[in-house]
Amino acid sequence: MRKKGSYRIKDIAIMSGVSTGTVDRIIHNRGKVSEEARIKVEEVLKKVDYRPNIVASALASKKTYKFVMLIPAFSKGDYWEIVNQGIERAEEELSGYHIEIERVFFDQYDKDSFDKQMEILEGMEFHGIVIATLFKDSVLRFTTRLDKMQIPYVLIDAFIENTHCLAYYGTNSFNSGYIAAKLMYQQIGPDDKLAVFRFIRKGDSCSTQVLKREEGFRTYLDENHFRGTIYPVHIHADDNEGNRNILDSFFLLHGDVKAGIIFNSRVHVLGDYFKARKKKDFKLIGYDILDENVAYLNNGLVTHLIAQRPEVQGVNCVRDLFRHLILKEKVKKMNFMPIDILIKENISYYNNYI
Amino acid sequence: MRKKGSYRIKDIAIMSGVSTGTVDRIIHNRGKVSEEARIKVEEVLKKVDYRPNIVASALASKKTYKFVMLIPAFSKGDYWEIVNQGIERAEEELSGYHIEIERVFFDQYDKDSFDKQMEILEGMEFHGIVIATLFKDSVLRFTTRLDKMQIPYVLIDAFIENTHCLAYYGTNSFNSGYIAAKLMYQQIGPDDKLAVFRFIRKGDSCSTQVLKREEGFRTYLDENHFRGTIYPVHIHADDNEGNRNILDSFFLLHGDVKAGIIFNSRVHVLGDYFKARKKKDFKLIGYDILDENVAYLNNGLVTHLIAQRPEVQGVNCVRDLFRHLILKEKVKKMNFMPIDILIKENISYYNNYI
Repeated sequence: MRKKGSYRIKDIAIMSGVSTGTVDRIIHNRGKVSEEARIKVEEVLKKVDYRPNIVASALASKKTYKFVMLIPAFSKGDYWEIVNQGIERAEEELSGYHIEIERVFFDQYDKDSFDKQMEILEGMEFHGIVIATLFKDSVLRFTTRLDKMQIPYVLIDAFIENTHCLAYYGTNSFNSGYIAAKLMYQQIGPDDKLAVFRFIRKGDSCSTQVLKREEGFRTYLDENHFRGTIYPVHIHADDNEGNRNILDSFFLLHGDVKAGIIFNSRVHVLGDYFKARKKKDFKLIGYDILDENVAYLNNGLVTHLIAQRPEVQGVNCVRDLFRHLILKEKVKKMNFMPIDILIKENISYYNNYI
Repeated sequence: MRKKGSYRIKDIAIMSGVSTGTVDRIIHNRGKVSEEARIKVEEVLKKVDYRPNIVASALASKKTYKFVMLIPAFSKGDYWEIVNQGIERAEEELSGYHIEIERVFFDQYDKDSFDKQMEILEGMEFHGIVIATLFKDSVLRFTTRLDKMQIPYVLIDAFIENTHCLAYYGTNSFNSGYIAAKLMYQQIGPDDKLAVFRFIRKGDSCSTQVLKREEGFRTYLDENHFRGTIYPVHIHADDNEGNRNILDSFFLLHGDVKAGIIFNSRVHVLGDYFKARKKKDFKLIGYDILDENVAYLNNGLVTHLIAQRPEVQGVNCVRDLFRHLILKEKVKKMNFMPIDILIKENISYYNNYI
């Protein structure tokens, strides 16, 4: 016997002793069919557990679906470039269907730019949307509107409660900070001093994910009786010279700080600094497998990178909209990514195998 | 313009202004076609970079392919059960094609049982085979025969040099041992004592993978100036009482051994022992995400598990035979799995997302 789901209309027709046209009419519930034929065919359908081939119908359908990706603008080597590679992959996978994917970009360091794009989206027609959740309050306002319009949305990056999202892809940010603390604590003593580097943004709000990671980080240290000092150090996006001055002043005052962490994907900015200052003994932990970060992991200036398979997230966000809207399948709501621990010794084998 | 590869015969026909029958005859090089039509169609085919739909032809083909999986027999919860889940998944994926997958099992602790199955396979007809590489010399003899018969084979578990395998899936065993040593060394001092637990097998040979892991482990410690003592402790597969006696005697003599490692997937056997003896401070590292191992990671008796995505390996072994034999695609030879580092804090998020 064949596998479930691999029976074609032709097979069903042969097995029931009727024409393919008759089977087709019964399956799609159209046209007239003799009662006798209906009984015979339905028996066979039950026996082989026949499910109509939605994929084939979707392929043949003329309806075009528009998906919007509301994600941060990126340059080459950015975190969001890798998410976008996943989106591109899904786009290719689904190229046989009539799906149009539009990317709407905002500046991840500027809440206003996100709010502006939300307004523009109000006037646009689309069937489903993927939303990067860097600005919690704005996202909440937006998803309330989407709920009213019954447009499904998938959240990506940090989970935001009190939405009716179709699905969420991202890490448990608290736990990913908690784990970073464990990895750091293996390298320092309970009375040591360490730095938490923070990127200052134009807007006043800090990304949800970054806040949650720091919370997890501090919780681990508290739970494990860390008695040392944690210094917050504020640096600026894309201001290398300014950052160098800030860091120089900081280390002039606090030369005994021997470890540090940054909760976004820009640990390479600090790698640049420590490399330039020939500080080799500093224990530095960061996030995400950007090429520049990986280079610092390889040369030992970064001790750990925590990664969350951004490409897998990108692929699955699009797939879920597709599965929900076109295949009418149920999709899983909470999709926490693995929290991958990367060190110099395993980074070269890191591969999503998607 | 449509994406490459998404043009159907119907589209080509419209674009060239001929009938679909004519396009079909040209593509499949059969029947008579006017020179004028041929030129028009070939121009369009070139323009849209048309590649005949091999998938569709394979689906329609009547030829049945037989794939053999020569893998260890497993019980519920074993490592090879998870590999087999991957094989099942590929089987389901490819259920529309005429592929028959036969599993041929051997006892992973008994080289003779592997050799016996090889002999049986000599008399069998099959088109491709996946071979678990636990017994290097036997595999080498077998693949020499396969090479002569031009039957493609995929190696899984440990890489074996000097074969002409179609593909390999597995970890770099040396590096996965090297990484285990780094994780252990974070928890012990340079003069500490530690145990390497080894499973004694019925045959005299030890699995290639286990040997390579231990080699990597010892290399890391040597390179990092470990001056302590490493005690090999030999235990036996499926002899719980005997093992308890061996371990009791060992710890009676060497109560100061505070850390240990086992290079196969049976760390749960040691977990059972330490749990029974209420030894909580022992640092234990193991391999593979068997449910029983994960339980010991969660309760703190095991500090790290190193995992290698067995399900992903199983899926891809079968997919590669399919892609090579049926789709005539080129497949990648060396496929090193990620070396995933699992701790209590990230284990619950571990997921292959395949």
